[in-house]
Amino acid sequence: METPMTWQLAQRTRRMNPSLVRGILKLADRPGVISLAGGLPAPSTFPIEALREATERVWRDQPQHALQYTASEGHGPLREWLAESLCAQGLRVTADQVLITTGSQQGLDLVAKLLLDAGSTVAVESPTFLGALQAFAMAEPQVAEWACDDEGPRPDALMALRGARLAYVQPTFHNPTGRCLSAARRQAMVAAAQQQGVPLLEDNPYGDLWFDAPPPPPLASLWPEGVVYLGSFSKVLAPGLRLGYLVAPPALYPKLLQAKQAADLHTATFNQRLVWALIEQGGMPAHLQALRGFYRAQRDAMLHALHTHLPGGCERPQGRAVPDPPPEGGKKTWGGPALSCEWQSPSGGLFVWLRLPEGADALALLPQALAAGVAYVPGAAFYAGEPDARRVRLSFATATPEQIDAGIRLLATLLKAPR
Amino acid sequence: METPMTWQLAQRTRRMNPSLVRGILKLADRPGVISLAGGLPAPSTFPIEALREATERVWRDQPQHALQYTASEGHGPLREWLAESLCAQGLRVTADQVLITTGSQQGLDLVAKLLLDAGSTVAVESPTFLGALQAFAMAEPQVAEWACDDEGPRPDALMALRGARLAYVQPTFHNPTGRCLSAARRQAMVAAAQQQGVPLLEDNPYGDLWFDAPPPPPLASLWPEGVVYLGSFSKVLAPGLRLGYLVAPPALYPKLLQAKQAADLHTATFNQRLVWALIEQGGMPAHLQALRGFYRAQRDAMLHALHTHLPGGCERPQGRAVPDPPPEGGKKTWGGPALSCEWQSPSGGLFVWLRLPEGADALALLPQALAAGVAYVPGAAFYAGEPDARRVRLSFATATPEQIDAGIRLLATLLKAPR
Repeated sequence: METPMTWQLAQRTRRMNPSLVRGILKLADRPGVISLAGGLPAPSTFPIEALREATERVWRDQPQHALQYTASEGHGPLREWLAESLCAQGLRVTADQVLITTGSQQGLDLVAKLLLDAGSTVAVESPTFLGALQAFAMAEPQVAEWACDDEGPRPDALMALRGARLAYVQPTFHNPTGRCLSAARRQAMVAAAQQQGVPLLEDNPYGDLWFDAPPPPPLASLWPEGVVYLGSFSKVLAPGLRLGYLVAPPALYPKLLQAKQAADLHTATFNQRLVWALIEQGGMPAHLQALRGFYRAQRDAMLHALHTHLPGGCERPQGRAVPDPPPEGGKKTWGGPALSCEWQSPSGGLFVWLRLPEGADALALLPQALAAGVAYVPGAAFYAGEPDARRVRLSFATATPEQIDAGIRLLATLLKAPR
Repeated sequence: METPMTWQLAQRTRRMNPSLVRGILKLADRPGVISLAGGLPAPSTFPIEALREATERVWRDQPQHALQYTASEGHGPLREWLAESLCAQGLRVTADQVLITTGSQQGLDLVAKLLLDAGSTVAVESPTFLGALQAFAMAEPQVAEWACDDEGPRPDALMALRGARLAYVQPTFHNPTGRCLSAARRQAMVAAAQQQGVPLLEDNPYGDLWFDAPPPPPLASLWPEGVVYLGSFSKVLAPGLRLGYLVAPPALYPKLLQAKQAADLHTATFNQRLVWALIEQGGMPAHLQALRGFYRAQRDAMLHALHTHLPGGCERPQGRAVPDPPPEGGKKTWGGPALSCEWQSPSGGLFVWLRLPEGADALALLPQALAAGVAYVPGAAFYAGEPDARRVRLSFATATPEQIDAGIRLLATLLKAPR
């Protein structure tokens, strides 16, 4: 005899909703669809031979250690190396501030557990990383938007967020916008955060993927005791290893460590020792250099496609207002209205943040785009509050230059069709 | 100019405290100390050659897939295999109810997020698994004890817990007690849970480690729609891979999946494909059989040592009250009082749950034990409420039979010394 079961769910489950992006990615994964949607790194960049070699060394030298439980803090030599690498980027950090996490997504979960109560305020950029909103939702906070201008979050706007437990920011090659904040804006933001007493959570998964010059030093280098820093091997090595890390001020570390123990005891020992063995082999600097060259060429392919197929488009160099493009750029080649897309050239990362012409709705246009054979993520997916319906996130990571060209051409055709 | 930072922490951080067990394990890890403390599996049982072979196949056949992001649900073939294996144990489950987790510790975190609000009640056995208490604490529930007798949680005692969101139980080779519930007790517990409308969270990391006969079918087989089931590869393959799984009723699965996405996106792709490659090789049944033989011999070594060195001890076969041992067992061989330790012979798992003589305090005795050269975990670490100060968890997993004998002899000497 079975009694039907009525589950009483926790309040926070009302905030758990299927991810719009994941739904789109499933649609984008159909044959014949060129996907500019995913946030995946290009599999061709995975250093498979180096990982195979590192695996052999782990199995040969330390198989039992690699398979046993380990410290919740993570593998010592890897933490030491991370601390040194971060110091080289301007942070003042020791290995005992480094906590290895199961991807940097877990860092978001741990920090939310540490700092957010139900109803307390967390500030986010607008737009922001969807995964952060999902992680924060577990703690049932109020989400407030930190108003942004073209240069990034506005320092003066932080006054309205006084009392926030945390402001979450991606200063470097932001997902979805690709934006990289200037050194001056970083300094102004940190000064404002210090003044308002709002700690910062700096998420930096893309920082190593710069195309022309290294980005300015992280926020954590400007305010070591007020910033929690998240990093990841997902974009520079391989996301399938689920290896990230956080750097916390000493005042926070012990409680974060306890939250980590409660979450999954520790990150997979094998994966940590594998990546450390890879680093020990010495190939990381060359790998990073190759990676930057690859993604730079991908970005260039996308910018070329945008210039070619969206002739009325207006590229705005980051941080500077530019006049409309010269009149010949606005020529109509099809019967539709002159296009007025906008985008900026990203100096790193994986994304271009396109703005469709006035009146366009990226979400409403998506079914037609998929039917035509191109997928993107509507920008609306990335806003905690009111979205800009014209925004589109385009990834140049995984499609070939030919596919990027064809995909943007399809998109242009759609935009130029009479509506 | 730096402003000193005052962090405002979430309320739940008051419940985060350093683990007593972890502190003890650090002390137990000193040279010259025989550790009967750890809950680690024996590294000698790790199937290193089979894993090395499986790794080679993953790198050869599917390197890019193994390194890329994957579905939050987990690797399809592994989920299919788990569903089939569980069906063979009496569960009615399909692959779409299986969610791969980052160790079964993460299953505890996800279920807490799904079902526990601040102040809602979660019922636990007394004693219970410390890691579960730590995971539940993140949701700030009230923890209530499900009163137990020698057979396990008392079905009649569940009436007092009506309204609990969840009752957490380890029916099979319980940590720390080693107890395995009879089929009759399982049925009575499930009937009570159905009657009171209290869902069950069944944690079963040790179920495959049986010594004489397979344990009775899991609780989840008796009440599929009211039980969430947690399993793990940590004790049967290797904990350093951090690979566990949960099985949820279809009504709960979608929200658990969203909690999983928010927690760490998915469990490491490489690790899932590695274990699936290992399973495909076909060696798992033989490996499990060898594992059972190994731990059976370890258990026998510990029982022999207990009989030899604690001659006044009283072994109580599980589930039956036995009279005091025959008088000659109580002979004093040293100057101290006759001993009256108690223990049961576990039929699986890794632990013996020893009860020291009246008046002894396992926590207070620990420094002397460590000084003498033997480590154990005081039972007090495993109680949500009032502990039994005389209890000790002894692990027979990693020490050699000679070390087990020497360790128990040292413990007996301490107990026999005049106090």
